Amino acid sequence: MRYVYRFDEGSRDMRDLLGGKGANVAEMTRVLGAERVPTGFTITTEACVAYMNAERTFPEGLEEQVATALRDLEASAGKTLGDPSDPLLVSVRSGARESMPGMMDTVLNLGMNDESVVGLAEKTGNERFAWDSYRRFVQMYGNVVVGIPGEKFEDAIKACKKARGVKEDTELDMEALRELTSTFKGFYAFPSDPQEQLAGAVRAVFDSWMGDRAVAYRRMDAIPDDWGTAVNVQQMVFGNRGDTSGSGVAFSRDEVTGAPEPSGDFLVNAQGEDVVSGVRTPRDLYELRTWQPRVHAQLMDILRTLERHYGDMQDTEFTVEEGKLYMLQTRNAKRPAQAAVRFVVDAVNEGLLDKPQALMTIDAEKLDALLHPTFDPDATYDVLARGVAASPGAAKGAIVFHAADAVAAAAEGKDVVLVRPFTEADDVAGFHAAKGVLTAEGGKASHAALVARGMGVPAVTGAAALEIDLAARTVRVGDATLDEGDLIAIDGTTGAVTTADVPLAEPEPSEDLLTVLGWADELRTLDVRANADTPADAAKARELGAQGIGLCRTEHMFFGEDRHEKMVEVILAEDDEERRRCLGALLPLQQGDFEGIFAAMDGLPVTIRLLDPPLHEFLPDPATMPPGPARDRAAALQEANPMLGTRGARLGLLHPELYAMQARAIAGAMLSHHETWREWPDVEIMIPLVVYERELELLRALVEQVMDEHGLHRGERYAIGTMIELPRACLQADAIAAEADFFSFGTNDLTQTALGFSRDDIESRVLGRYIDMKVLDRSPFETLDAPGVGQLVRMGAWLGRTTKPALKLGVCGEHGGDPDSIDFFHHNGIDYVSCSPFRVPVARLAAAQAAIRS
Amino acid sequence: MRYVYRFDEGSRDMRDLLGGKGANVAEMTRVLGAERVPTGFTITTEACVAYMNAERTFPEGLEEQVATALRDLEASAGKTLGDPSDPLLVSVRSGARESMPGMMDTVLNLGMNDESVVGLAEKTGNERFAWDSYRRFVQMYGNVVVGIPGEKFEDAIKACKKARGVKEDTELDMEALRELTSTFKGFYAFPSDPQEQLAGAVRAVFDSWMGDRAVAYRRMDAIPDDWGTAVNVQQMVFGNRGDTSGSGVAFSRDEVTGAPEPSGDFLVNAQGEDVVSGVRTPRDLYELRTWQPRVHAQLMDILRTLERHYGDMQDTEFTVEEGKLYMLQTRNAKRPAQAAVRFVVDAVNEGLLDKPQALMTIDAEKLDALLHPTFDPDATYDVLARGVAASPGAAKGAIVFHAADAVAAAAEGKDVVLVRPFTEADDVAGFHAAKGVLTAEGGKASHAALVARGMGVPAVTGAAALEIDLAARTVRVGDATLDEGDLIAIDGTTGAVTTADVPLAEPEPSEDLLTVLGWADELRTLDVRANADTPADAAKARELGAQGIGLCRTEHMFFGEDRHEKMVEVILAEDDEERRRCLGALLPLQQGDFEGIFAAMDGLPVTIRLLDPPLHEFLPDPATMPPGPARDRAAALQEANPMLGTRGARLGLLHPELYAMQARAIAGAMLSHHETWREWPDVEIMIPLVVYERELELLRALVEQVMDEHGLHRGERYAIGTMIELPRACLQADAIAAEADFFSFGTNDLTQTALGFSRDDIESRVLGRYIDMKVLDRSPFETLDAPGVGQLVRMGAWLGRTTKPALKLGVCGEHGGDPDSIDFFHHNGIDYVSCSPFRVPVARLAAAQAAIRS
Repeated sequence: MRYVYRFDEGSRDMRDLLGGKGANVAEMTRVLGAERVPTGFTITTEACVAYMNAERTFPEGLEEQVATALRDLEASAGKTLGDPSDPLLVSVRSGARESMPGMMDTVLNLGMNDESVVGLAEKTGNERFAWDSYRRFVQMYGNVVVGIPGEKFEDAIKACKKARGVKEDTELDMEALRELTSTFKGFYAFPSDPQEQLAGAVRAVFDSWMGDRAVAYRRMDAIPDDWGTAVNVQQMVFGNRGDTSGSGVAFSRDEVTGAPEPSGDFLVNAQGEDVVSGVRTPRDLYELRTWQPRVHAQLMDILRTLERHYGDMQDTEFTVEEGKLYMLQTRNAKRPAQAAVRFVVDAVNEGLLDKPQALMTIDAEKLDALLHPTFDPDATYDVLARGVAASPGAAKGAIVFHAADAVAAAAEGKDVVLVRPFTEADDVAGFHAAKGVLTAEGGKASHAALVARGMGVPAVTGAAALEIDLAARTVRVGDATLDEGDLIAIDGTTGAVTTADVPLAEPEPSEDLLTVLGWADELRTLDVRANADTPADAAKARELGAQGIGLCRTEHMFFGEDRHEKMVEVILAEDDEERRRCLGALLPLQQGDFEGIFAAMDGLPVTIRLLDPPLHEFLPDPATMPPGPARDRAAALQEANPMLGTRGARLGLLHPELYAMQARAIAGAMLSHHETWREWPDVEIMIPLVVYERELELLRALVEQVMDEHGLHRGERYAIGTMIELPRACLQADAIAAEADFFSFGTNDLTQTALGFSRDDIESRVLGRYIDMKVLDRSPFETLDAPGVGQLVRMGAWLGRTTKPALKLGVCGEHGGDPDSIDFFHHNGIDYVSCSPFRVPVARLAAAQAAIRS
Repeated sequence: MRYVYRFDEGSRDMRDLLGGKGANVAEMTRVLGAERVPTGFTITTEACVAYMNAERTFPEGLEEQVATALRDLEASAGKTLGDPSDPLLVSVRSGARESMPGMMDTVLNLGMNDESVVGLAEKTGNERFAWDSYRRFVQMYGNVVVGIPGEKFEDAIKACKKARGVKEDTELDMEALRELTSTFKGFYAFPSDPQEQLAGAVRAVFDSWMGDRAVAYRRMDAIPDDWGTAVNVQQMVFGNRGDTSGSGVAFSRDEVTGAPEPSGDFLVNAQGEDVVSGVRTPRDLYELRTWQPRVHAQLMDILRTLERHYGDMQDTEFTVEEGKLYMLQTRNAKRPAQAAVRFVVDAVNEGLLDKPQALMTIDAEKLDALLHPTFDPDATYDVLARGVAASPGAAKGAIVFHAADAVAAAAEGKDVVLVRPFTEADDVAGFHAAKGVLTAEGGKASHAALVARGMGVPAVTGAAALEIDLAARTVRVGDATLDEGDLIAIDGTTGAVTTADVPLAEPEPSEDLLTVLGWADELRTLDVRANADTPADAAKARELGAQGIGLCRTEHMFFGEDRHEKMVEVILAEDDEERRRCLGALLPLQQGDFEGIFAAMDGLPVTIRLLDPPLHEFLPDPATMPPGPARDRAAALQEANPMLGTRGARLGLLHPELYAMQARAIAGAMLSHHETWREWPDVEIMIPLVVYERELELLRALVEQVMDEHGLHRGERYAIGTMIELPRACLQADAIAAEADFFSFGTNDLTQTALGFSRDDIESRVLGRYIDMKVLDRSPFETLDAPGVGQLVRMGAWLGRTTKPALKLGVCGEHGGDPDSIDFFHHNGIDYVSCSPFRVPVARLAAAQAAIRS
């Protein structure tokens, strides 16, 4: 059994065996050569598992293999562990597959003892450095390996300082350090033999894998015990050995702008920790060239090499020991969206990456940030409260508490922010009118968040510190009280709320972004449409590259100012005659909506969903209505579980006059569009919430009849399909497909029903706790629950195509704008996703990445 | 191509080809011989389809085949169609696979013309009869075949009667009838040639298949056009040819009691219609023996033969023509439950059927009626209103409007009926206390119906005529007003509501029923448990044969009088300390519940479901509470969709102290049971509403810890499993099974979520309309929706057993007591169903039938 690998024998593919740290340093050794990376070896995770299984004894062969690896290390370092004249010192670090708190961290300077301290002092010409290193090792070993409480050492240091009348550790001279070392050695049986030191350290790493904290952490994170941890033994290098030594961090390109010049910081005569801790102000990387031109040239060369090897911008750590450059770490650099985009364009132009490779370096999710205004990054302001970053972008304006006030203020050209405990369907007009939305309750999938994201309106939700008194029209936050009309600013990208007049930064799609999205379009096979309910949304969607409207929710049209009242009349009508009259009044308005959308989309497909929500959503709370038949009717329409209530196709079958009116409005708009533009719009009529094929059969007949009366025939001028948004529809998709020209998966409602999770109720109360308890790693409303909901989508797609091999399949839930979900849809035969207009660029890139991946 | 079959060539298996009527008469001909069944032949449905496909021309060969069959018919009848001396007369009837309105019905007496009327008169010695037959035929043919409006004939009859000064048709003499016949023949070109008459009638039957009404009906009923209809041509026989002729109906056994003596009615010198119409009072079948002993003996013999052949009690129609017995129809007799049960016992004892055959003759559903009191069948009373027959059995008592009043009245020993617009969780204590429940709203699956059925309390729901004013404590029905305390009686088996003091009939399981259920137990492999929440329910369940408790809902215990208040305190507790104190007070009460149930079940398995409903269900409506922190907390707990809300496992994870208390109560009850009885109860602890395996993992750990503290170890003293009641749980059942000792499918909630149907909202508003529109044929809450919900159950079972081949699988939804659903469960690997105690006998029989079927 092989338990030990030299760094130059491993690679990044061997993470399971060598742990994350071991695989990473091995890969860098392979790329840069053993010269550039302090030499060492890794004891495998399998050795750890064997050790545990054998009741904490080293497995057979391990000690010999370590001894051999150590001899190799000594040979390559030209130094020997414990050599009294020029001792080799090593670090010992744990390293599991994933980094994990509770594990033994690091023992530095292993190899020190009474003899080697002398050699180190001579070799470095720095006695204090040598004794400080020794003192640190005895202390670290005693604490980390032997398990003596840290305070015992700290107390001894304090006593020593007191005795010598000094305050700082750095004021302790060589004599004091020698004395302290001696005191520390009295605390436990310090092993002078470096071999014994090493064996003890390895054992300590293994034992720490089964330590209480690590075990508890693994339980919480559902990491199996039998992964084990690796142990990394590496030669020490010192950036603090004088003026030709130093440490630094270097990015292969500018980490903020992505410009193709390396950037970073360094410190002369310092260790890595000093650069990061900010105790001293580091120097800019370009000064390296004047300080040590050869090192600078080497580093530039290495950065290029690493970038080429990893195919991505690198973030590295380095140490210079007496003029010799060592690389300690490299990883793909985290970077803001604009840098990520720029890197892609440059990398392709430089020939570093081809387009597919380059596109894979961007986190698609991040593009979102490039499309919304933000608080000016340089602005300073006091944060009043924090909430959930529910819909990206920043906004500011005067506080209003009611949708109607928002509408009125907007009509006067005022900027307002709608502030409410939570929002409901009634408030949607206010979303259109307000610059931003702020709620005290609700999470990322609350009504406010969903509607705001859908409209691209910035929103902060669940800002629990706000106490909103709607009657008094005030917000209390701690001691402060804000009144209607007071200025408030929100940042939906960070969740910050402030009363400061923060300047906003307006974004503009950069040339680079357009280039990147263009490349994405070349590579993707999944179409991207947008969810849009108004001509303005439709125009925005096209501008951002949508290839059609995948979901036009007709009910949102009935919340408009001039329509809502009429819709209420329709619902509360006392007889059919009156209802018909009221519907007649709505018809031209609805037709006008469609005309505007058809014009905006100019021949691209538009999927119109007929009325979906339960009728009571259009009505005021019956408790607020005067007694009478209207209130009785409103009360009778209330439902215990509206989500599972009289909606969608059910509504269409119970009140065929509603769907008939909508079909008439569509027909009228199609004819009028044709009249004006001499072109037919590409119309798809969608029946929501079907579970029985018969529902679709009946409603299709209803719509076809109306359309036929206008001389518009299915298959020729328009298509009829259905939303697949309930589990039964997925399981019976073969039967339903017989009645449908297309399917659009409504993954929001499918998630709610498959998981029994009411978005309104569960997201705010349960999801957070569930994530804490590792039941979930993120909201199933953000990223599709592949094993459950995804399985239903897959069955629906498969069964639907069993009946109609060319059945068009779309997705119009929130997941249509989520990169991981898009990947799933791409791989499961979906033709297009549809998302909020502002998510269209994200979806275009994610779709390309999914195509590249397959 | 063969288009014509003589009756003696067909059988009941040829229904698709010969239609229902043709197959039925053919079978009877085979069994009884051609002597006993008027001879005839059937033109196949395929001939009809060929006729339609050939633009309404007879397919090649049809006319020749009909001519041949007719010759055979004439030969066997010894008469010839159109014979002037002794004419053969035939009837022509349509007959599709299923009977269908809108189709041409019947032409009688075909073969009459100016010559044959003379022969008939001579042969019968009854000129008036002959001319009336001729007149009727000309009228029927003109109306049914030619399509002349019926009024035209009726007007002519009226004019004739007026001219002769008579009032009744029967007063018209031979002359008048001859004149009328002549008049009718003036309305159209009457074909004298009997062959031409026959061809015209066949064509008319075929055409009626494509008639508007039949097509519309088929569209509604989703019957395909290409089934076609058959045509039956049969020799006429006449029960009205004098005193040795007659017609009657005969059952092979007493149709009310099932006693093994044939029963029925007959009329001398009458046709079948006369017996059914009730114009004359028929004579009892036993008088047949004195009237015509030979015919009686023949009929008795035939009834035995048919019973043996069909293996079931028969319901027949017969005609005696001049002393010769003809059988016109036989079918399995519809019968009330007690007769069905008696038949089974007798049939087995007589050796007529073996046990499996005998058990298959009972409609399992009907057994229910044997176990509940009913309105005395002889009582007469005025019906005040009608509602849905929601929970079988009858009840009467004083009206109360609030659950608390029901409890108070019951404590004083009064019988009360709880009358409410609808019921909620709060009202459950009232169900226990009341004799019956009556609501103005809600269907068969409303809260009131479900809870009432579960408890075996009679209920009528959705009695829409009731206007209930809770505040005034009155019910208005039309002009009548009832006050609290007034007597009301309900029959949950029929839906009737009355203010009459109707006597109730108390049932007792008969010896026969016990025998039948005993046989069912021998044959079935599916276990039957009961849903029971109290010791009384548990005792009832055992008495009715339950093999354990499949669902003990612990929340119902918290609605009890002494607990509800404490439960409210737990929920509204201001800090953990107070909550712990309140929970501590509930613990002994809950433990007492379990002790009682364990004692009642005496070692049979008891599945205890931990708390499931959202906490707000225990609280009053916040709107009714005084302002303060309690109201705020109650308001904060409200949910938009409680069905998809903070329930079950979610509750357990958010409030572990609740489940811990319940586990402690279970442990305490187990130990105390063991102390008393020296035996351990068989306990299964069930975690509700799991969708993620991690939920079950965490809650199992919680329960195990508490149980371990009491020295009770899983696998040894108890099991832990989960309800599978959400679609995701079915799809991920393999993962969940790893954490579970058993699954119990909660098919109620699974139906709600898979279909997106809120029971509360959809059952009353949508289901009725959906059944009208043929979207559904019955409520998916009564009978499992096999293609959707059933598919999920199948997947859950299959995946669960993939992980654990011996995983125990139960069903505890309402469907556990529904025979069709039980058949599904039997065939899909379920180990047991659990239903209301009163449904246990139904389930035992249905389980046996499912086993017999496979």
